[in-house]
Amino acid sequence: MRAAMMYGAGDVRVEDRPDPKIIQPTDAIVRTLASCVCGSDMWPFQSMPATDTGRPMGHEFLGIVEESGADVTGLKTGDLVVAPFTYSDNTCDYCAKGLHISCRNGGRYGFDGVDGGQGEAVRVPHADGTLITLPVAADSQLLPSLLALSDVMTTGHHGAVTAGVSRGDTVLVVGDGAVGLCAVLAAKRLGAERILLAGRHTARTDLGRVFGATDVVSERGDEGIARIQDLTGGVAKVIEAVGTRQALDTALGALLDGGTISRLGVPQYEQGPIGPAEFMRNITLTGGASPARAYIEQLLPDVLDGTLTPGRVFDQEFTFDQTPDAYRAMADRQVLKALITP
Amino acid sequence: MRAAMMYGAGDVRVEDRPDPKIIQPTDAIVRTLASCVCGSDMWPFQSMPATDTGRPMGHEFLGIVEESGADVTGLKTGDLVVAPFTYSDNTCDYCAKGLHISCRNGGRYGFDGVDGGQGEAVRVPHADGTLITLPVAADSQLLPSLLALSDVMTTGHHGAVTAGVSRGDTVLVVGDGAVGLCAVLAAKRLGAERILLAGRHTARTDLGRVFGATDVVSERGDEGIARIQDLTGGVAKVIEAVGTRQALDTALGALLDGGTISRLGVPQYEQGPIGPAEFMRNITLTGGASPARAYIEQLLPDVLDGTLTPGRVFDQEFTFDQTPDAYRAMADRQVLKALITP
Repeated sequence: MRAAMMYGAGDVRVEDRPDPKIIQPTDAIVRTLASCVCGSDMWPFQSMPATDTGRPMGHEFLGIVEESGADVTGLKTGDLVVAPFTYSDNTCDYCAKGLHISCRNGGRYGFDGVDGGQGEAVRVPHADGTLITLPVAADSQLLPSLLALSDVMTTGHHGAVTAGVSRGDTVLVVGDGAVGLCAVLAAKRLGAERILLAGRHTARTDLGRVFGATDVVSERGDEGIARIQDLTGGVAKVIEAVGTRQALDTALGALLDGGTISRLGVPQYEQGPIGPAEFMRNITLTGGASPARAYIEQLLPDVLDGTLTPGRVFDQEFTFDQTPDAYRAMADRQVLKALITP
Repeated sequence: MRAAMMYGAGDVRVEDRPDPKIIQPTDAIVRTLASCVCGSDMWPFQSMPATDTGRPMGHEFLGIVEESGADVTGLKTGDLVVAPFTYSDNTCDYCAKGLHISCRNGGRYGFDGVDGGQGEAVRVPHADGTLITLPVAADSQLLPSLLALSDVMTTGHHGAVTAGVSRGDTVLVVGDGAVGLCAVLAAKRLGAERILLAGRHTARTDLGRVFGATDVVSERGDEGIARIQDLTGGVAKVIEAVGTRQALDTALGALLDGGTISRLGVPQYEQGPIGPAEFMRNITLTGGASPARAYIEQLLPDVLDGTLTPGRVFDQEFTFDQTPDAYRAMADRQVLKALITP
């Protein structure tokens, strides 16, 4: 099969790789119908040290079940399924709590002999616990929005849930990437009345307005904080969808005492400001990697009935063989989120 | 009046100071009946640079209203009152949310011309918004437990509330100081079934058992974490009542993914571990300085009917003139918490 491999910063190649085979009786093979490039793929694309062996890329995909192991009971050949961005058994104590991202038997695509999602087929471990069947045809117009459930939309939703967004709230979303925009959508869905979106790329913030943002703050740093303070007097709930220290500082500066920051962007720092000043302000820091599996069934009805349209974050389509172009286009910020199809 | 002043590390003096007078019409003068030394007073006692002017000390006291300003309507001369450890107007947006610690017009005793609590009398700003009348006589046996509401008990309660403790929970309390012990009491009161107390001072952990601790972990660092993991498999709710990085590391090591750490000890660090590892684990960091004012009325009935006895943390009594001895005894860990009376 053809699949994308990263050999170092800026070096993504599409190669012939062995076709995946069932290894464990709980595996399934999924023939990919659609995949995409994640904002988090941009970090290794900017900084991964060069290697000879390469690393299979991609963790967001949907496709058709081609084959399944002897112990797989909930799926059959021909099922259209979406994969959350990590696999999980859906039976351990963490999964039982809805924290599938910490599954005792779970893992990440592209590691430990598991294929990446940016390829023609994927062996999915713990297929029964991981994959969710989609009641649509393989040529459905809903496919992009359904694909968005694998990560970007369920991640945005995780931010809104952990920030405690509820009806009538004022919420700040820091970051106009695809996750930030989906966080806007999620906050709107949970009833937020005023949604400030901090971002400076007009095409993206325009989509943010379509998704429900009521105010766009394009200033950065102290200027951005001053503007948010002017507009609101401070906000109690912030979703930080970037992962840089600057984004966290913006969140802290805009936050009311007693407020909550939910982080969705993988932190690009090891240590952060949790000293006496933040302590005296009673700031809550929450969020983290989304347990996408736990949220997909919850959001699916809204996607199926057309009320939730996260697929709008995909603004350009690439073929599998064009995957390296998709990375470059996203790294250059020409594309918000690249959809990849056979 | 006689009042305690700190002139530098290890240097507390009891001196003659001007008797407090009404300055603002919202002030009241409280004649102190009982005061105490806080664990947080130990930080300056260990590290405060020497000064010529000194700083009035103490922020926990109860006493009798001696005089009040023209705008004070809720208090009268002779009322027995307890003061939360910061003053607040009880009318601003933060107070309305129950976050009196962030009151727009609030402040700390011993700063900005306000007396400290370790003295014979205190001018209390925003007296109506700050002081709570106690329906007991000045010689009540309940005085120590009522005094504990000014900080240590309401702080422990803040930890249990922000950690989300509820019926049947397993909770870890890190630290066997007076705040940690009150956190045990608070967790028990909110229905925690299993309460692990990490501490190594037997007299203190014994009181912790009386307060509701079911397990005492006396090992420190990695050994302590290993023991908590052995006992529980990890805990979802931790109250960190020390403030050191080691205590935070113990909390992180003992925590289940998706768990919550509520911090009660003022952090003795500016930066802490909130990087990718903590992000992937979906750890929530919450807590902070307690809005004591918001909790006093809530806890008062339980103190009045004798079911809540936080006054047991006071294990030695000193006169005002012995306040320097009280500091030394607490710094040397001979005393858990010093009660100071005229």
